Amino acid sequence: MFYLRCITCGSEYEEGDVEYTCPRCGMRMGTLEVLYDYDRTKVSREDFSPCADMWQFRKILPFKREVCRTHLRVGSTPLYSFPNIAKKFGLSNLLVKYDGSNPTGSYKDRASAVAIAKAVEYGYKDIYCASTGNAASSLAGLAASSQLKAHIFVPASAPRAKISQIVVYGADLIAIDGTYDDAFDISLKVGSTKGWFSRNSAINPYLLEGKKTGALEIIVQNNWNVPDTVIVPVGDGTVISSIYKGFYDFKELGLINKIPRLIGVQATGADRVVRAFENGSPYQPDDGNAHSVADSISVGKPRDVVKACKYVKNSCGFFIRVSDQDIVSAVRELARSTGIFAEPAGAAPFAALRFLFDVNQLSHESVCLLITGNGLKDVRAVENVDNIKTVKPDVDSVLEFLEHSC
Amino acid sequence: MFYLRCITCGSEYEEGDVEYTCPRCGMRMGTLEVLYDYDRTKVSREDFSPCADMWQFRKILPFKREVCRTHLRVGSTPLYSFPNIAKKFGLSNLLVKYDGSNPTGSYKDRASAVAIAKAVEYGYKDIYCASTGNAASSLAGLAASSQLKAHIFVPASAPRAKISQIVVYGADLIAIDGTYDDAFDISLKVGSTKGWFSRNSAINPYLLEGKKTGALEIIVQNNWNVPDTVIVPVGDGTVISSIYKGFYDFKELGLINKIPRLIGVQATGADRVVRAFENGSPYQPDDGNAHSVADSISVGKPRDVVKACKYVKNSCGFFIRVSDQDIVSAVRELARSTGIFAEPAGAAPFAALRFLFDVNQLSHESVCLLITGNGLKDVRAVENVDNIKTVKPDVDSVLEFLEHSC
Repeated sequence: MFYLRCITCGSEYEEGDVEYTCPRCGMRMGTLEVLYDYDRTKVSREDFSPCADMWQFRKILPFKREVCRTHLRVGSTPLYSFPNIAKKFGLSNLLVKYDGSNPTGSYKDRASAVAIAKAVEYGYKDIYCASTGNAASSLAGLAASSQLKAHIFVPASAPRAKISQIVVYGADLIAIDGTYDDAFDISLKVGSTKGWFSRNSAINPYLLEGKKTGALEIIVQNNWNVPDTVIVPVGDGTVISSIYKGFYDFKELGLINKIPRLIGVQATGADRVVRAFENGSPYQPDDGNAHSVADSISVGKPRDVVKACKYVKNSCGFFIRVSDQDIVSAVRELARSTGIFAEPAGAAPFAALRFLFDVNQLSHESVCLLITGNGLKDVRAVENVDNIKTVKPDVDSVLEFLEHSC
Repeated sequence: MFYLRCITCGSEYEEGDVEYTCPRCGMRMGTLEVLYDYDRTKVSREDFSPCADMWQFRKILPFKREVCRTHLRVGSTPLYSFPNIAKKFGLSNLLVKYDGSNPTGSYKDRASAVAIAKAVEYGYKDIYCASTGNAASSLAGLAASSQLKAHIFVPASAPRAKISQIVVYGADLIAIDGTYDDAFDISLKVGSTKGWFSRNSAINPYLLEGKKTGALEIIVQNNWNVPDTVIVPVGDGTVISSIYKGFYDFKELGLINKIPRLIGVQATGADRVVRAFENGSPYQPDDGNAHSVADSISVGKPRDVVKACKYVKNSCGFFIRVSDQDIVSAVRELARSTGIFAEPAGAAPFAALRFLFDVNQLSHESVCLLITGNGLKDVRAVENVDNIKTVKPDVDSVLEFLEHSC
């Protein structure tokens, strides 16, 4: 009930005809879309619930038979509404989809769940990925209770909490003395040599289908109201592509009647998708160095550029840059105004919201921010608490301390 | 529809008659129970859902009118079943209630939500707590989007991630150069001097009512089947008391017909509740020093000893000690076998399960482990990844590395 289509040349393939990407267009230009027979897929709004996990969407997930589902609860993450903050920004509504409550604390669990199910379906024993950190800890965590051995390539500079997760979960850690982009390229060659299944999002077309469930949940949990705008952090470009794809599927199925405008956010020092978008159609990779406090989106050689640019264009959206300084201050302001502690990449959409407000680019619209990761994954990026001021353990000292700290 | 009763002398009070504890029995012996008019409280099983948040239990929460609910989703955390692990331990079922997915990553959010609602109901502007870390970050996080100013007393040695949370959320941090027990005593005096509302669990009787919702969810999510045994980490004794209280309320309401056996777990170096229990009835505090890798339960002067001991005795349960070494290895084994990464205190029940199995203390019964905190809150306790082995960024180096690491 599904088939694959090249994002560049439009060639169509059946599952099994190709491994990961279009052989004609190559790995960078030839990422594949997974499309369904929308006319023959019978679904109605009543099939979906605001509190069921991601597998409730199985009719539009790329499996032909019953699948091996991870037993941890992936998806069903909260969608919050903040009327007071909406008012401050002149919006009709402000929604926040918070994926930090997934099992390993990030959006990537949605993709890992599908990757594991596919690997098991195909009979693999080993699965690998390269990651800035979140996909790594996600794959390690969700593979832990499966029969698969996970091999994880990360840049050695990845945040300690994410590396700790990989080690605790017992995955095979390969810490590359280089960038995420180095780790990615090496993982492809090693994975291919070893015959391991790839959980590299932009390469493996099925993973985006897992990620799209975030968009589907936004709609279902918002009682089928479609936000006007959704703001998404962008590294490789897979998450924003998946968000578009979720809305696209629901629209093709006749369940919603529009696709929100998508705004992709990159860090100023890691803005290669913004550049590719600005260069215009036909979209091409525009690689370079990357440096950002937001490690999850610090990507110099993004792998899903073509799809991300095409989809964002289709949605009448655009990409913007935010500085590291604005990202860090967004983590704090988001935490203080909502109680949601996001990792830096996760807070980038809030930084973007503030920027768009400052330059009068927002109308009285409904906006949804996608918060992709839990702040506990990278506490040092925001607060260095190694040298906090301590107080002597007596009441008078504390009262004096309070006197001066207020 | 509710009243207060002293755990020691049985004196009964109306809300408003007393502030926090029984004036006759004092702070340590006179903690209060919150009891309801169970005959007049009309509830049925159909009133509750496996996926609604903690406020679904409002008919048995201590509020006389509609309350200020935190807008973050507290409760509705996953209850998992692991048949394979159950089999390994000869159990009929193994359930795991995972509260690491609460907004700030711990069980304490359930108590903070009630504390904030009570403070707002009473018209307070300030709220405080002393905490080993989790109650602190929880109060800071849930107060962030309220009108309350949170003042947080922690031992300066609390894990960095927890302190980072407090700072990010913008709470007033008072890092005491002493133990948790010092922080607790000082907070009471400072809070009283300043006229702040207390979110110290064992003192404020209403907080335990928030915590009990974890027990209520276990029952509802397990389709009204009552586990035979529930294993709970114990510091001050409030969480295990709350678990008993939840089951007690459901039993009094006629919704279940038994209370599970409760097993409380302490660290060998912080075993003051175990000692009090072993000393026998009438239960008395038996204070001393505390030292454990499991910071959340590293308590030398536990505040809810009498209630915890009485309730565990009523349940036909007991307390046991587990070593720090066993706790750390339990974090790893739990992560590797289930994909759940718990903080050390959260994994203590799994260490206890392994111990009870080794000494043949388990029958073919159903056991539920309460995992109280997310492993991301204290990654250093388990894995020091500062000196991980890195690999040169080329394929041959990686293949050679894999050769030797396998």
